[in-house]
Amino acid sequence: MRIHIVNPNTTASMTAKVAEAARRVAGPDTEIVAGQPEHGPASIEGHFDGALSIPAMLGEIARAERDGVDGHIIACFDDTGLDAARSLASAPVIGIGEAAYHAASLVGGKFSVVTTLSRSIPILEHNLVRMGLAAVCGGVRAAEVPVLALEEPGSSARERIAEEIDRAIVEDRAEAIVLGCAGMADLAGDLSQRFGLPVVEGAGAAVKLVEMLATLGLRTSKIGGWASPLPKAWAGPYAGLAGPR
Amino acid sequence: MRIHIVNPNTTASMTAKVAEAARRVAGPDTEIVAGQPEHGPASIEGHFDGALSIPAMLGEIARAERDGVDGHIIACFDDTGLDAARSLASAPVIGIGEAAYHAASLVGGKFSVVTTLSRSIPILEHNLVRMGLAAVCGGVRAAEVPVLALEEPGSSARERIAEEIDRAIVEDRAEAIVLGCAGMADLAGDLSQRFGLPVVEGAGAAVKLVEMLATLGLRTSKIGGWASPLPKAWAGPYAGLAGPR
Amino acid sequence: MRIHIVNPNTTASMTAKVAEAARRVAGPDTEIVAGQPEHGPASIEGHFDGALSIPAMLGEIARAERDGVDGHIIACFDDTGLDAARSLASAPVIGIGEAAYHAASLVGGKFSVVTTLSRSIPILEHNLVRMGLAAVCGGVRAAEVPVLALEEPGSSARERIAEEIDRAIVEDRAEAIVLGCAGMADLAGDLSQRFGLPVVEGAGAAVKLVEMLATLGLRTSKIGGWASPLPKAWAGPYAGLAGPR
Amino acid sequence: MRIHIVNPNTTASMTAKVAEAARRVAGPDTEIVAGQPEHGPASIEGHFDGALSIPAMLGEIARAERDGVDGHIIACFDDTGLDAARSLASAPVIGIGEAAYHAASLVGGKFSVVTTLSRSIPILEHNLVRMGLAAVCGGVRAAEVPVLALEEPGSSARERIAEEIDRAIVEDRAEAIVLGCAGMADLAGDLSQRFGLPVVEGAGAAVKLVEMLATLGLRTSKIGGWASPLPKAWAGPYAGLAGPR
Amino acid sequence: MRIHIVNPNTTASMTAKVAEAARRVAGPDTEIVAGQPEHGPASIEGHFDGALSIPAMLGEIARAERDGVDGHIIACFDDTGLDAARSLASAPVIGIGEAAYHAASLVGGKFSVVTTLSRSIPILEHNLVRMGLAAVCGGVRAAEVPVLALEEPGSSARERIAEEIDRAIVEDRAEAIVLGCAGMADLAGDLSQRFGLPVVEGAGAAVKLVEMLATLGLRTSKIGGWASPLPKAWAGPYAGLAGPR
Amino acid sequence: MRIHIVNPNTTASMTAKVAEAARRVAGPDTEIVAGQPEHGPASIEGHFDGALSIPAMLGEIARAERDGVDGHIIACFDDTGLDAARSLASAPVIGIGEAAYHAASLVGGKFSVVTTLSRSIPILEHNLVRMGLAAVCGGVRAAEVPVLALEEPGSSARERIAEEIDRAIVEDRAEAIVLGCAGMADLAGDLSQRFGLPVVEGAGAAVKLVEMLATLGLRTSKIGGWASPLPKAWAGPYAGLAGPR
Repeated sequence: MRIHIVNPNTTASMTAKVAEAARRVAGPDTEIVAGQPEHGPASIEGHFDGALSIPAMLGEIARAERDGVDGHIIACFDDTGLDAARSLASAPVIGIGEAAYHAASLVGGKFSVVTTLSRSIPILEHNLVRMGLAAVCGGVRAAEVPVLALEEPGSSARERIAEEIDRAIVEDRAEAIVLGCAGMADLAGDLSQRFGLPVVEGAGAAVKLVEMLATLGLRTSKIGGWASPLPKAWAGPYAGLAGPR
Repeated sequence: MRIHIVNPNTTASMTAKVAEAARRVAGPDTEIVAGQPEHGPASIEGHFDGALSIPAMLGEIARAERDGVDGHIIACFDDTGLDAARSLASAPVIGIGEAAYHAASLVGGKFSVVTTLSRSIPILEHNLVRMGLAAVCGGVRAAEVPVLALEEPGSSARERIAEEIDRAIVEDRAEAIVLGCAGMADLAGDLSQRFGLPVVEGAGAAVKLVEMLATLGLRTSKIGGWASPLPKAWAGPYAGLAGPR
Repeated sequence: MRIHIVNPNTTASMTAKVAEAARRVAGPDTEIVAGQPEHGPASIEGHFDGALSIPAMLGEIARAERDGVDGHIIACFDDTGLDAARSLASAPVIGIGEAAYHAASLVGGKFSVVTTLSRSIPILEHNLVRMGLAAVCGGVRAAEVPVLALEEPGSSARERIAEEIDRAIVEDRAEAIVLGCAGMADLAGDLSQRFGLPVVEGAGAAVKLVEMLATLGLRTSKIGGWASPLPKAWAGPYAGLAGPR
Repeated sequence: MRIHIVNPNTTASMTAKVAEAARRVAGPDTEIVAGQPEHGPASIEGHFDGALSIPAMLGEIARAERDGVDGHIIACFDDTGLDAARSLASAPVIGIGEAAYHAASLVGGKFSVVTTLSRSIPILEHNLVRMGLAAVCGGVRAAEVPVLALEEPGSSARERIAEEIDRAIVEDRAEAIVLGCAGMADLAGDLSQRFGLPVVEGAGAAVKLVEMLATLGLRTSKIGGWASPLPKAWAGPYAGLAGPR
Repeated sequence: MRIHIVNPNTTASMTAKVAEAARRVAGPDTEIVAGQPEHGPASIEGHFDGALSIPAMLGEIARAERDGVDGHIIACFDDTGLDAARSLASAPVIGIGEAAYHAASLVGGKFSVVTTLSRSIPILEHNLVRMGLAAVCGGVRAAEVPVLALEEPGSSARERIAEEIDRAIVEDRAEAIVLGCAGMADLAGDLSQRFGLPVVEGAGAAVKLVEMLATLGLRTSKIGGWASPLPKAWAGPYAGLAGPR
Repeated sequence: MRIHIVNPNTTASMTAKVAEAARRVAGPDTEIVAGQPEHGPASIEGHFDGALSIPAMLGEIARAERDGVDGHIIACFDDTGLDAARSLASAPVIGIGEAAYHAASLVGGKFSVVTTLSRSIPILEHNLVRMGLAAVCGGVRAAEVPVLALEEPGSSARERIAEEIDRAIVEDRAEAIVLGCAGMADLAGDLSQRFGLPVVEGAGAAVKLVEMLATLGLRTSKIGGWASPLPKAWAGPYAGLAGPR
């Protein structure tokens, strides 16, 4: 089985970190291919960055489809462009945010999310509402740590995240924690030990969910909101993205 | 006052129709400037078309901001890219979908939406949930009419729309109807007369809401999810869109 | 265009303040006529005051309808008697509470309301739920300031309100603030400057929404809950209010 | 124990029917006193009728309080003026609509309501939402029977109601039925037999709920939305209603 | 009338306390019979204890049905096994948790629940959601007092409960309090006096609700989720519980 | 990895069918052990059957824990006893109902459930509400086929199920279908082909979700509602189930 991970931002070190987390848990027959677009923002912090990263990310997904893959993972915790990717791709697509929420809801009666910046909170809250999982989410909290600070050794990012986990346990009665940024993928083990509750990072969960869908033969339904793009007149750089139309 | 209408698809005849509907209701001191991007799909039917139209649409919004405007209207009923546009712009931004929902909720205890294709239903439903107005919406219905068919004289589009209005009154107990596509802007008057209930098209409503915000001096809050884009490394065509960073 | 503002309480100074806020933002062709009933409570603080003010307020609305107006505004933040007024009137009716909520939701992803007394909180919460806008409201807070204290120079009312705005930003993550009493109409500008976020008062918003409905030719739907009163036997002072029956 | 039933409309025959239903189920030590105001509409059909009936109804409640009672029942299925009555009265107050909903939810996993006219549906739906019981309500349906037709022998009212019960069982999967009008109080037994499921009328349920609250010593909380009216300047007929202020 | 109270745990002193609370409020013609199963846990603290107590509790209900009763009360605040009991019994069944929620919602616009251990909070929250009454519940709080500590004279249990009531009034804006454990039945009067708001214990409320249903002739609907058990092959100790099948 | 499947009813042929579906999709290193309790009902149809099957099922789970397993699957679509099992077990526990809902929500924007008997509908609806996934569920439908009829060759069960799928696509706008009974596990492939949309059976999905949790090292949180049973006095057959206490 071949799973394509696309990091929608242009920071290759973050792609590498996610791919590593993915390979750690992938099944023996699963090959992970990972990449990021050439164009777009170095990190996704808020709606604007997210919206502009989508076309190039869809370009990566189209290329991977042509190469042949069994599923795609969008490696941004905002689940950036998930709906458009599901419309375009024929293989299943999973966002690391949604993967983490589903996994957390299976081991904690209520989970809280700790993300980087508060501007991302409404994005995650809306995703949770759409997926229904807002009902089992105790809260979305921001550690107020820029995404790229997570890549810097010696930053106080880890402590800020721990502080919010502490609060989530007391104030939200969280029974599990979701780490709300692809860049936090390597912290889950330590934090779980420290706080004595499940701490979920999304990249690993996404791999296992794509493996699940592929093994069960489940592909994105094409009869509703994720129907394939209709052929139509199209001008400019992405004109051919959805195939000959 | 100067209001910028951006049609996110590339079909100039649709821009013209919306601009006409806008000018019909604009205040005596309001100037309407309208346009559409050079690149992108000829119509927006579903998530994929929408996602790909956003960058070029944001380009139009950035240009209008530089020229100086008091507000922007996104002339697609899906409210395409509304969050990203609010993050980018300093003037207020209104989508014609949201405008229609707000207006309808003021004259009908429950309204239903009649849109073009069923693939758009989940998009509108999610928008309604986010805005809270799902609570006063009786249903979103599709006439199964392609967007561009609305531009063709002699199509059966109008009758299909009327049939769904009939059903909405009986099955949803709708007290008002929202026409769920920019291309339906010219049908509202006739349908209202025929069915004896308010029929709302969004372009006119959006103009009056932008006028409201501008007159009241209300601008998009920049302390939450619609905060201005952060400066960061950026590669490719839209690198400078959010200004020098 | 002629807009009728009815203050449902008997305090003429409050009517004057609301009318002034209204005239400040009304269009060049809009005439504002404002009044209050002769009978009823001097202020509306809670369900009892509200219920008893409605018949005389409806009398004012009936009179204005006979005189000919293009819309009515109910100038109490509780939106007192809004449903009954919509049933009675043929012109559209807007409450200043609902107007403020709609406006705030267009400039803030989440807004909080600061009202006078805590006994009014459940009233506003129920209104928000009915309108659907509870979904985008972060909280309703009381400054514990009696309505008429807002009319007294030198009271600490303004500071109490500012304290609650402070809390709303931190605890509710409010991105916009709604001032929850007609008597606060003159504070919005200063508070917006001080806190760096949109602060909405309802009277101005209501004027622009009535102008919107009148310009768009949208009138209250009469096929559902706001149907015109049925003719029937009626005893006592308000027997003829709904016209010859 | 003494329970005061107030019919908010002026039709004495309806008061008599409700009082009879109440006496049939009252405890051996419970005295039922029932009345209706002198002024107001002959029936309550929609928001307008309801709003205008409240002041005179509150007058009846104030008089009963002075005479000494252990609880009040508002005998209109719309629960007209319930919040204002709870603010005014020191004894507990129950509406027959709410009583029926609570009782039905204890014997059916999901109940549907059959009321008279469709204009009343939004009123009942809002009440259900406020009480939370919308979550266990399958639907509110109108038999399109005017309230006073229920008083006429030989009308087709009963058959129209039966038809809606039939539909509620099939379409709403209703396990219990609530009869949504005080005038239907005498139909419950027959309909229950005919359809093989619990059919609830509200007057009897309200008597038992008032008996419950009185026996348990539970009175309306006065620290929130139902706090006693504040003393204030008041002009006109109901100036003294809330006592010396 | 004969009401059967079953305490699902095996602690006879708790049965006695509940029966006493029940008899204090029962009508003159109501006989209370109370018991507990021979087998099972000494107290119910969490899902596991609850699940294991149900079969023996259902055995008690079956025995009482054979003896002839007009209704059953499940005397555990978790409403343990309520659905299964309603399926089995032909007389109505009320849980003391649900009884308390319904009663509290009639005297307080918003109520909070104070229970024993935090592990019970999700159980009560789920019950409230199912019954719809979550919409009028301000919060469920744990005093972190083991159930059996309530039986010990001189424990600090009472003070811990009072502390949580204090917080509920301030933080949840609770207007009424529900005591969330059968073992707290004797504290309601004192706490109500001390805090000046209604404090509801469920056993008394349950008695009056069963009396209501029995007097009104309302029995559990058997056409939906509470249909009688179907006859089928059955192995082991409870094989005959649902009667000859 | 070793996964324990417990079928809570006593019908060994159903256990075999589920185990077969499980083994078809299990990873190369996954061993499936499956069983059913000796005591209890032959099928689970409604609340009563479910409640009585739980203690013996928990006995099976305790035995498997002693033998050493990496996770448990409850092979009843009602997710019978899931909370109690999670409290008791130290390895993760997944219900086949919840597994199917999660999987379906990843490939369909809205899914509908087709179960056996209408008496099970409220059970599944409550589970969906608790898990949050009610928000993405279009409806729960019953084919009115007894559970054991699914085991009979030549029954009309398959056609009844297909009819409900047809309706779900039209009436619920379902984009995916969940087969709501363990006994339907072998129908998914054919129905998916026939209707051109994803059809999910839960046993396979549950295997992959347990593999996910085990691989990611995620175990049930023990700090909330699923905390381990407290030691306490206990009488009768299941006294020692939670270990020495």
